[in-house]
Amino acid sequence: MKLNDNFRNIKESYLFAEIAERTAAYSAAHPDKKIIRLGIGDVTLPLVPAVISALHSAVEDMSREETFKGYGPYEGYAFLREGIKKYYAENGVDVGLDEIFVSDGAKSDLGNILDIFSKDNTVLITDPVYPVYVDTNVMAGRKVIFAAANERNGFLPMPDGKVKADIIYICSPNNPTGAAYTKAQLKEWVDYANAMGAVILYDAAYEYFITDDNLARSIFQIEGAETCAIEFCSLSKTAGFTGTRCGYTVIPRKLEAGGLNANRLWLRRQATKFNGVPYIVQKGAAAVFEEECRKQIRGNIDYYRENARMIADCMDELGIWYTGGKNSPYIWLKCPFGMSSWEFFDYLLNGAQVVGTPGAGFGENGEGFFRLTAFGSHAATKEAVSRIKTLLSQK
Amino acid sequence: MKLNDNFRNIKESYLFAEIAERTAAYSAAHPDKKIIRLGIGDVTLPLVPAVISALHSAVEDMSREETFKGYGPYEGYAFLREGIKKYYAENGVDVGLDEIFVSDGAKSDLGNILDIFSKDNTVLITDPVYPVYVDTNVMAGRKVIFAAANERNGFLPMPDGKVKADIIYICSPNNPTGAAYTKAQLKEWVDYANAMGAVILYDAAYEYFITDDNLARSIFQIEGAETCAIEFCSLSKTAGFTGTRCGYTVIPRKLEAGGLNANRLWLRRQATKFNGVPYIVQKGAAAVFEEECRKQIRGNIDYYRENARMIADCMDELGIWYTGGKNSPYIWLKCPFGMSSWEFFDYLLNGAQVVGTPGAGFGENGEGFFRLTAFGSHAATKEAVSRIKTLLSQK
Repeated sequence: MKLNDNFRNIKESYLFAEIAERTAAYSAAHPDKKIIRLGIGDVTLPLVPAVISALHSAVEDMSREETFKGYGPYEGYAFLREGIKKYYAENGVDVGLDEIFVSDGAKSDLGNILDIFSKDNTVLITDPVYPVYVDTNVMAGRKVIFAAANERNGFLPMPDGKVKADIIYICSPNNPTGAAYTKAQLKEWVDYANAMGAVILYDAAYEYFITDDNLARSIFQIEGAETCAIEFCSLSKTAGFTGTRCGYTVIPRKLEAGGLNANRLWLRRQATKFNGVPYIVQKGAAAVFEEECRKQIRGNIDYYRENARMIADCMDELGIWYTGGKNSPYIWLKCPFGMSSWEFFDYLLNGAQVVGTPGAGFGENGEGFFRLTAFGSHAATKEAVSRIKTLLSQK
Repeated sequence: MKLNDNFRNIKESYLFAEIAERTAAYSAAHPDKKIIRLGIGDVTLPLVPAVISALHSAVEDMSREETFKGYGPYEGYAFLREGIKKYYAENGVDVGLDEIFVSDGAKSDLGNILDIFSKDNTVLITDPVYPVYVDTNVMAGRKVIFAAANERNGFLPMPDGKVKADIIYICSPNNPTGAAYTKAQLKEWVDYANAMGAVILYDAAYEYFITDDNLARSIFQIEGAETCAIEFCSLSKTAGFTGTRCGYTVIPRKLEAGGLNANRLWLRRQATKFNGVPYIVQKGAAAVFEEECRKQIRGNIDYYRENARMIADCMDELGIWYTGGKNSPYIWLKCPFGMSSWEFFDYLLNGAQVVGTPGAGFGENGEGFFRLTAFGSHAATKEAVSRIKTLLSQK
């Protein structure tokens, strides 16, 4: 047999390994120094009580013959899809139950969705980028082109009518930059995609952090998106499900090409290669869309938002240019003193014992930038901010 | 964009829809008759107490900051992989921890594994077949050829040195036929695969039903398999996890081709398109490999085995030829009186109000055969067997 040669073309990322290595070396040399990690993209607060209670109750269901659940629907239980449908309705979006597919996370679906597309599509990805978009397409042998996100466009590149693309990835609020498109900006992307006959794969994993009404919570708030977009949503950051694994994908019935229907193809793909999300997890996920739980979750999100605000205020005070921080758990800052991403990493580690993520690790446009995240504790974030201020004011 | 044209070549299966339709029509015409369903491939007994207890405890872990789990390892937690490694050791198989990948089920991995293989591979599949093997390859545009399983070879086709294949699917004990390869027979397949440079994708989802020591519980009990096989395992039937979703896949480090290593490619694939199985589910799965739980699970398996025995005894008594029933939850019988699969379906539904699965739905070699399953209750199975005996003795 032949293994897939395209794997030879996937770039190995040493970003997080390199961060771990430099941090460990510093730690070994300075065992007395307390390091604060603001580089992580994982949540730290536990699941909220309403979710815990729903999970326990679902476990009980599995213990009794009358309520035991075997194979479930490939697209997810109706009780969960109905909760998702209602959530969309709150944002003025009418989504059909058969347009919602429960997944084990946005990442899985963002990768697996490519099964329904021909290899002969040109893929347009913004740079800097969540590496999954690139690697999944390289693995399948597709041509990938990039749209530069940079300081000039506020890390929000707009469509270029001269560039021909078939599959377009947009993540807003963005990982790693925290930048988020306004509804007006997204309308330009939707119009471009419809004109091109392209599809937008819209990663909305961070939508719960949005407070500004000018920003889109869903691409389906934009007129015309139902003929050109698929939306990937996640409970990972919304409800702390990074280790519980549940998300959902919305594929409009109107998304068609060459006589094939994307929604039906995806159902067929899932029926063939997937057997649904655990019943227990779906019960926990359904709780997320109920009012009592929403309050608890908002508490957690507010906690992370407060961290983001502390970091953003610090940047404002220091006069450092950044994106994110307001409608996103990420702060993407321009390295001061003209430092490169890794220079600033070392500077911050040595001078303030704070670990962040060098932007250069997310693509060539990330060079000279740096990511801090809001997923730490208040105390650690406060201490980190204070150290950063002291360090940068000295120079 | 272009959607994937290969989807046009996937055959729509109307098997279970047609069964449902004919059963509903009969039910509507005869509302007084009690129908017994022996067509289902899903378990009916609830999760055992040891698993329930592990699940509750894991839910508690998720409720506290000190024990909360975010993103886990792509390949699964070590605590679960260690249990799996020990289980393999009981069967005399030494598997490395880095050769075990925890999955959300054998079906997902059986489909997704194709990502690591080139499109240019010829796929050999036994017929009748679990449709997932065929559909996943058609979806990817691969050439599929079939090996006929039939009465002459006891539904256990052996390798044909004249046939060139790159990827070979073997499911033993088989779904739908219940037939299981002996170690000696599997050795022939392993030798053939090694000689051809082919890979065997070995579906061991039903291994827990094996009692006969001449049969293989794992393809890695066969010498030489570590250079030509990948094994897909499931807790669905073993521990009633059809709705809880956990399985595992073993890829030897020695499985290589063209300078690429299948094990490393799969880890890269999973890191890119998967974020692991829920922590809660992995905790429940880990319990399955502990002694107290094993006893409870054996109780459930024995329960299903007793159903299989009842059905097999009935066939023996009626002089009907069949495979399975002894080391498998499936009984694959030759339709009596020269009936076709669907004729026998109607005959059984009308005459005994028993619903099974027409073999013709699993491929052309399934015509004239019929599948009954052992996943019902004792009472229902006993009643069904009694009705079948009465009906077939009358004719």
